Amino acid sequence: MSLAGRPGNFGSRFHNRLYALLGLDYVYKSFTTTDLPAAIGGVRALGIRGCAISMPFKEAVIPLLDGLEASARAIDSVNTIVNDGGTLTGYNTDFIAVRRLIEQAGIAPQTPFLLRGSGGMAKAVAAALKDLGFHDGVIIARNETTGPALAATYGYGWQAHPGDLAAPFLINVTPLGMAGPDAQALAFPQDKIDACDTAFDVVAMPAETPFLARARAQGRRLISGADVIILQALEQFILYTGVRPSEAQVEDAAAFARAAA
Amino acid sequence: MSLAGRPGNFGSRFHNRLYALLGLDYVYKSFTTTDLPAAIGGVRALGIRGCAISMPFKEAVIPLLDGLEASARAIDSVNTIVNDGGTLTGYNTDFIAVRRLIEQAGIAPQTPFLLRGSGGMAKAVAAALKDLGFHDGVIIARNETTGPALAATYGYGWQAHPGDLAAPFLINVTPLGMAGPDAQALAFPQDKIDACDTAFDVVAMPAETPFLARARAQGRRLISGADVIILQALEQFILYTGVRPSEAQVEDAAAFARAAA
Repeated sequence: MSLAGRPGNFGSRFHNRLYALLGLDYVYKSFTTTDLPAAIGGVRALGIRGCAISMPFKEAVIPLLDGLEASARAIDSVNTIVNDGGTLTGYNTDFIAVRRLIEQAGIAPQTPFLLRGSGGMAKAVAAALKDLGFHDGVIIARNETTGPALAATYGYGWQAHPGDLAAPFLINVTPLGMAGPDAQALAFPQDKIDACDTAFDVVAMPAETPFLARARAQGRRLISGADVIILQALEQFILYTGVRPSEAQVEDAAAFARAAA
Repeated sequence: MSLAGRPGNFGSRFHNRLYALLGLDYVYKSFTTTDLPAAIGGVRALGIRGCAISMPFKEAVIPLLDGLEASARAIDSVNTIVNDGGTLTGYNTDFIAVRRLIEQAGIAPQTPFLLRGSGGMAKAVAAALKDLGFHDGVIIARNETTGPALAATYGYGWQAHPGDLAAPFLINVTPLGMAGPDAQALAFPQDKIDACDTAFDVVAMPAETPFLARARAQGRRLISGADVIILQALEQFILYTGVRPSEAQVEDAAAFARAAA
């Protein structure tokens, strides 16, 4: 199941589709709540195997659990609970997914990066970069509290605005370019996108942002928000069921889930 | 959802089948628990619309609810919870179903009856008979505590064994004739079955008991445990969804549920 302030359909469709494809006797249902302790108590008392945690519960849920696995400890944030016979352990599969995607892209840890954003997901990305040995980076965030705090936590620099900064690895973790008045905005200046090696738009979903579109047109290496969403959901699936679906099954479930996301 | 000491499949199959037939966006799942207060707290906190309650939780759940509807108050026993925006109300659809089946059979309230059994379901039947105005009855129960107590609660007679008693309305609420060493046993003496007008075997499921088979062979009016199980589940369905399925849909769902019960 999942708990979110505003429940979506992606998780239900992705997981239930894989249960059907694999013939597994599970069912996935999304919920919201105004009483998080009672909801988590219900997960434990009913023997619900797993629970995805979304905003605004990712930190509030921590004291209600029996323990945190390393991925959740790395950023003090839980997006996944696994229930082993009444013992609830918190994981963060966003952290796991982001770390794996950067690793799989083969980007050397000495590569300088710019990371735009300072929210919960930006923290997951900064922690993953730190964990992989990246040491030369700047957090770009207008928020003069969360921006410097995030930079200090992981030992990176901070600037409020991109200015003239450039780096071969550009990462956007803001809604810039996704929808609303900023739908046409580039997350980084165009010449800096053209000059980068890798463009990573962490939360872009489902459409490609102007940032990723520009980088694609220039032939840059891309990592998209869709990659993150699918990989983190797959990691949840494996934690819940102990079963690893084939790549074709994951692609099928992701396409099915996206169709109504 | 449902909560039971030993969860079965009937409810899940019956309700989910009707959701599919009617195109309703519900899902039904059965659970067990070792922490009833936390489980009911979870029902409330997660906004789960309804919860069937089976043994051993039917009385223990009462103090966890916000109120009891008349059917549950009639026998101090809850088999159904409806959640209206966090307010939990207890119902007893066994009581409702038994009362309706006796009413629909058109048995006059002055008809004498014998009721065999003194458990929770026997209480539901005795209360339904009382509610319908039946005043001339005997509870037959070997248990010398629960038997006389049930009889006294509703103003009926009590005997430990059927002896030479006879009545036009015979009701069995024991496992006699269902399975195990008593599978061939008649709930009432054969000559008394032959002489009755109506034979009601409340919990017989799915096979017909020797009691019902004998009454059928003699052309007596029958009410079966399958009727009770289906009607009480239908009452739950209507309470949960506000939708009344057609008779054909109920028959389809009942057959589907029985196939794996």
